[in-house]
Amino acid sequence: MRHFTTELEQLNSKLLEMGNRVESALQRAVRSLVDQDESLVLEVLDGEHAINQMEIEIDGLATRLLALRQPVARDLRLLTAALKITTDLERIGDLTVSIAKSSRTLTLQKAALRPSPHILQMDSLVRSMLLKCLDAFLHGNTDLARSVLFADEEVDLLRDTVYLDLQDTMRREPALIPSAIALILVGRNLERIGDHATNIAEDVVFLIAGMDVRHRAKLA
Amino acid sequence: MRHFTTELEQLNSKLLEMGNRVESALQRAVRSLVDQDESLVLEVLDGEHAINQMEIEIDGLATRLLALRQPVARDLRLLTAALKITTDLERIGDLTVSIAKSSRTLTLQKAALRPSPHILQMDSLVRSMLLKCLDAFLHGNTDLARSVLFADEEVDLLRDTVYLDLQDTMRREPALIPSAIALILVGRNLERIGDHATNIAEDVVFLIAGMDVRHRAKLA
Repeated sequence: MRHFTTELEQLNSKLLEMGNRVESALQRAVRSLVDQDESLVLEVLDGEHAINQMEIEIDGLATRLLALRQPVARDLRLLTAALKITTDLERIGDLTVSIAKSSRTLTLQKAALRPSPHILQMDSLVRSMLLKCLDAFLHGNTDLARSVLFADEEVDLLRDTVYLDLQDTMRREPALIPSAIALILVGRNLERIGDHATNIAEDVVFLIAGMDVRHRAKLA
Repeated sequence: MRHFTTELEQLNSKLLEMGNRVESALQRAVRSLVDQDESLVLEVLDGEHAINQMEIEIDGLATRLLALRQPVARDLRLLTAALKITTDLERIGDLTVSIAKSSRTLTLQKAALRPSPHILQMDSLVRSMLLKCLDAFLHGNTDLARSVLFADEEVDLLRDTVYLDLQDTMRREPALIPSAIALILVGRNLERIGDHATNIAEDVVFLIAGMDVRHRAKLA
């Protein structure tokens, strides 16, 4: 029988792999917007299945370990955190697919509208939030996890800017309405990805510190 | 020491209570759109905290039972399902708050734009999906859970209709652009709520049948 520690390490590394896949899909989806590159859109769509399968696989592993090893304290929290984190990563994967689809909409329209610097800033911010949660999870670093909670407000502000800019664009050039809506939805989806990264960061703090910061950090 | 069965029943009833609160918040949020009633918006915003607290409470209860009772088979699946389901219910709560905020945007604009029958149809469809998952969970009814998986496609079609109608509106009347965007986002949020209800239905099927239908049912 394998050591429990080895099994937990395997679970950790699978979670990280899932997170990295999701992050790289997001990077590709946003690049497909900038470059209007259909092949990147297809890569994101093709990759969704593998991400979904990873959720099933990790949940199965966590549930099996709960049953066979009957862990307590930190190990128990690690397994329950894994079940919550895969849910969030899978949703980020879905939102990434939505971004790729918006990108296709834009390409089909041959519209001149490209993502604004604010959208690109949102993208790099939420991807960094995502990488930070994963890193915090791997190294048991609560400070890093907490830094993600604060970044979420910046994401919300950027989303408002993106929204107001595009509303102006639509008023000035009604022909750009479909492209502008597509980009507003991209902004919304990036914001939601930031929310999921925040959820993961909260789970990581709970895992490490045994302290529930959910729905409280935002008040700080 | 209390009976494990009683504790599981308590967990079940708390999950149902959380689900019912979320459903009733959604109903209020959409009614606030129709009636342009700010007091309903406030009720939804005020109720968010209680929903968030329920997630923390139920997760704590599930984790404690995992630690103390070290359950196997169906009881283990019930507890892991609870952890997944609270994540989805909490996200539905967030999306409901977004809808209430869109409603406020519309009211502030004194725009003539009201939600179309398609939006109302989406609302009643996703609320019925939500109630069905909860009912399927309570009565261990996989057929009911599976019916939710199929309803999801109808929600997606309605969302497309809502989107296209509002795009037309914006072209015809640029003054209505902000209200139209608010309603497009309502449509998107209702669609995402349908996605979360689908996730819950998949968890319920897994719980009852021990069979993972996630990311597979949609192919059927």
